[in-house]
Amino acid sequence: MAAFSSLSEFRALLAQMPAPDSQALEGAEARNGQLTKPPGALGRLEDLAIWYAGWRGSDQPRVGKRQVIVFAGNHGVTAQGVSAFPPEVTVQMVANFQHGGAAVNQLSRVAGAEMSVHALDLDTPTADFTQNAAMSEAEVVAALTTGWNAVDADSEVLVVGEMGIGNTTSAAAIANALFGGEASDWTGRGTGIDDAGLSVKTRVVAEGVARHASEDALEVLRCLGGRELAAMAGAIASARAKRIPVILDGFICSAAAACLAQAQDGALDHVVAGHLSQEGAHGKLLAALNKNPLLALNMRLGEGSGATLAINVLVAAVECHSGMATFAEAGVAAG
Amino acid sequence: MAAFSSLSEFRALLAQMPAPDSQALEGAEARNGQLTKPPGALGRLEDLAIWYAGWRGSDQPRVGKRQVIVFAGNHGVTAQGVSAFPPEVTVQMVANFQHGGAAVNQLSRVAGAEMSVHALDLDTPTADFTQNAAMSEAEVVAALTTGWNAVDADSEVLVVGEMGIGNTTSAAAIANALFGGEASDWTGRGTGIDDAGLSVKTRVVAEGVARHASEDALEVLRCLGGRELAAMAGAIASARAKRIPVILDGFICSAAAACLAQAQDGALDHVVAGHLSQEGAHGKLLAALNKNPLLALNMRLGEGSGATLAINVLVAAVECHSGMATFAEAGVAAG
Repeated sequence: MAAFSSLSEFRALLAQMPAPDSQALEGAEARNGQLTKPPGALGRLEDLAIWYAGWRGSDQPRVGKRQVIVFAGNHGVTAQGVSAFPPEVTVQMVANFQHGGAAVNQLSRVAGAEMSVHALDLDTPTADFTQNAAMSEAEVVAALTTGWNAVDADSEVLVVGEMGIGNTTSAAAIANALFGGEASDWTGRGTGIDDAGLSVKTRVVAEGVARHASEDALEVLRCLGGRELAAMAGAIASARAKRIPVILDGFICSAAAACLAQAQDGALDHVVAGHLSQEGAHGKLLAALNKNPLLALNMRLGEGSGATLAINVLVAAVECHSGMATFAEAGVAAG
Repeated sequence: MAAFSSLSEFRALLAQMPAPDSQALEGAEARNGQLTKPPGALGRLEDLAIWYAGWRGSDQPRVGKRQVIVFAGNHGVTAQGVSAFPPEVTVQMVANFQHGGAAVNQLSRVAGAEMSVHALDLDTPTADFTQNAAMSEAEVVAALTTGWNAVDADSEVLVVGEMGIGNTTSAAAIANALFGGEASDWTGRGTGIDDAGLSVKTRVVAEGVARHASEDALEVLRCLGGRELAAMAGAIASARAKRIPVILDGFICSAAAACLAQAQDGALDHVVAGHLSQEGAHGKLLAALNKNPLLALNMRLGEGSGATLAINVLVAAVECHSGMATFAEAGVAAG
């Protein structure tokens, strides 16, 4: 059962999303001030716990079920020679995810998260966006719906990741179309292309943006995106509808999320940035989204890896908030 | 049974410490190159896993037992009015640690670590170092020994933390004595003193350094340190003897470790910096130790909190390294 059947219905949904619970926010702020530590001494962990409390509607929440979803898609734009890896790697890596051999499998285990993989029509790559729109409206709505439906209602934090040879090209084109500047500002080396490849990739991004420029962020997603990017956007929106906080991964995930933010003010209020990717323009993209990453470890793998690593930072923040004694409970002088 | 009975015996031990296993290092580097990811895409996680492999002597290690030890001490220098909290808070917080109510208790649970607390002669504060050496040789050796003996031989990663009202003053004095500059370069707000308190604290640090200047880093530890700082130094050295990697916490822990680094070149090769504390001079101190912190979350709590939060980053790095499939195992094209 689809929650929407067109981009305009999806857009209307985005305009009706819930806000955080102000009573839980106030309660969590008050509790934070009573915990056995100097004021502010847990730094960003304190902000994170209060933010989480607001979305979960409890001033003393825990982080129960942790869900990691990896979406995979293939990209017609790989015909232009934009990646260091051949497109067959997408399906090979999906098998690797299913057999537990990828980085995100290990990271999900460490985070205590359930991981699932959704391969989206890998036999039918999106159109090469230098020639045509990457997807029809029916295709992008189907991918958004796959993402929307993949989110478990009982999850208490969500990470969405991706696999798709060619998808940093798609993400760069989306970022450029949404935020302007030059193609070279947004185009990076992805899995590791050389200088000649980077030059080709930058030209491809510029061509795509010139062809599909639009003020409508969901049209940008349709014309320059990929199925896995649309699915990530659908899942992030679905999480908001269910008051499930989301941790953003790297450049591709952030580009997908940016389509929501540009389509609807505040659409990413339930989202934090898990990490700063080493993929060239991620810092610039996070700045455009006004998100400050939790981690910066020079990662650039995708798959949801950086965000999954950040799950434990969120869990630690919430456990400190909800598990620590207050000054009164512990009989400690409050300074 | 003490491993040493004087500072000169401790110094001699530091000169005879083990190196990492070069065969395990080489094996881990080779394995890293075969894992199903673009080269370098896990960033600092790759370096961390290879470093860990070298110390544990295995090219495919796991992180088993995780030990967090909190040492507590009292400081005569609090008589000078250097802290926002009264000295009674040290013993009150020890009780809070024992009852599971502090931040480090929650963080240890999230990290899957065993936490213990060692209170060091809280009824007998060290001497006020503006008047006398903080400790006699017998006292500092006893504290080093407590730390040395607290490390379990079967631990596979160690965090040492501290509690001690007044101990950022001690740490600032140590850093200033070891690395030069002005007292104001090294003196921060600790648990949160105001401008007038900071001015007093800076003067106290300058007086201590002027009185106890020494080329001998272990003498600096004796004269300007505290029992909990000496215990942390003893534990870090003990871990090295047992090839147990250590994650450094914040300013106070780093000052204790710096005494080892200045006493013996390479004494911190088995140590990584867990986080950058917001306590003023921590970044400067880590730079002097040539350590690049894993996390930077504006924390400034001590207790081992930042390092304990970083345990999961190390575990994630090692799990990726040892758990991921190789290109050959997964049948993925290697680009």
